[in-house]
Amino acid sequence: MIELHLIGIGTGNPDHLTLQAVRAMQEADLILLPRKGSAKSDLIDLRRSICAQVLERPVRIVEFDMPVREASADYARAVSNWHEAIAGAWRAQIMAHLPNGGRLALLVWGDPALYDSSLRIAGHLQAAGMAINTYVVPGITSIQALTAAHTIPLNRLAGPVTITTGRMLRAHGWPEGADTLVVMLDQGLAFEVLEPTGITIWWGAYLGMPHEALEAGQLCEAGPRIARQRAALRARHGWIMDVYLMRQGEG
Amino acid sequence: MIELHLIGIGTGNPDHLTLQAVRAMQEADLILLPRKGSAKSDLIDLRRSICAQVLERPVRIVEFDMPVREASADYARAVSNWHEAIAGAWRAQIMAHLPNGGRLALLVWGDPALYDSSLRIAGHLQAAGMAINTYVVPGITSIQALTAAHTIPLNRLAGPVTITTGRMLRAHGWPEGADTLVVMLDQGLAFEVLEPTGITIWWGAYLGMPHEALEAGQLCEAGPRIARQRAALRARHGWIMDVYLMRQGEG
Repeated sequence: MIELHLIGIGTGNPDHLTLQAVRAMQEADLILLPRKGSAKSDLIDLRRSICAQVLERPVRIVEFDMPVREASADYARAVSNWHEAIAGAWRAQIMAHLPNGGRLALLVWGDPALYDSSLRIAGHLQAAGMAINTYVVPGITSIQALTAAHTIPLNRLAGPVTITTGRMLRAHGWPEGADTLVVMLDQGLAFEVLEPTGITIWWGAYLGMPHEALEAGQLCEAGPRIARQRAALRARHGWIMDVYLMRQGEG
Repeated sequence: MIELHLIGIGTGNPDHLTLQAVRAMQEADLILLPRKGSAKSDLIDLRRSICAQVLERPVRIVEFDMPVREASADYARAVSNWHEAIAGAWRAQIMAHLPNGGRLALLVWGDPALYDSSLRIAGHLQAAGMAINTYVVPGITSIQALTAAHTIPLNRLAGPVTITTGRMLRAHGWPEGADTLVVMLDQGLAFEVLEPTGITIWWGAYLGMPHEALEAGQLCEAGPRIARQRAALRARHGWIMDVYLMRQGEG
């Protein structure tokens, strides 16, 4: 039997780890760290340094190469194939390093519940007959790091919040009835599809990391500023992860 | 100058604290703990025990009585008056215990950005001329504790998420275009306004605490079960905090 612990590690600041996350890492028999190619080598370096900082007893750590998602017009099928490939990679590591079962820990960026595939991949393994029990340790999301960095509430007073993706915003525009809108997984600058007048934006990249970048303002003037900043940062670091929050009207 | 640190402490499990939260508590000159009346005495007990568990050096801890929100048909005015009253209570404690400034820490349930008033109350003090710099330490929200406890993703694959309140759900029903709907601050059972067919619900109360309670299922059968369970738990403990997530269709 495999006990799979999906451990949210926050967004790059090792101090985002919860005491529960630290304990789950300590108690693991094996920690698997995914390598995602050289452009994102910062991310595995960060996981390595979190392990070095946090572990007070030696825990076996194994790195493995993550399968790459195929480019495809059929998004759902490409994602499903990719999840199957990752499940296969996990299975191979489990067979090699935990053949008699045990506690496997995976360090998940942010929180394992929010725009992360680990729970679905674990589901693939279970569906394929592997004896696996899954546990989730929540972690600080980039949304929380964003609002903390800007010292702003996520919601307006007793107001609703909509979380969506760059792809959805680009396809459908501002969602009907949304008051506060958070956009994640944006490959580009999906806010450019909006009529910017009257919208305020709070943007952040590399949240929680030493090179954290923040911008905020009225979308009509802040939008172009964010676009320049984002391009420059991406060129400098080779990758970027960002998130933003928008509200219609003032603050 | 007052450095105000709003520290998210998660939802009752002391292991929800992040390393950043522990550090911010350690470095405080004063920790203020609000007393919210006898019905919610569990909540101050919990903050006291978090301080006892976490602090490795003595930090001054002062308890104060939170003003009570007046019952009023005018929700916005009642809330605004209440925030003013809390700001006054904070100010009195600051004058008494940090007359020359220093680091003040407040332990905020969940995350200070999500349905919490502390940032707005700090804004009242600033607007009234107090020299105050505010810092936020994000914490695990009840939404994250809910999805972790049920081992489910918050969002459908690349789908949007809407977070709303019991009051909004009761007034407006299922929000247009919502895929996953999270309901917070529900004083009753606002989901009862929905036509339950085809809706799946995941519910949790006292999340992260020893008496955590979970229910899930199709709303038509799970709804009445949750209503009974909620009434029984509330009678037993004298208070309840719960949150739930719903999706149209399967999982």
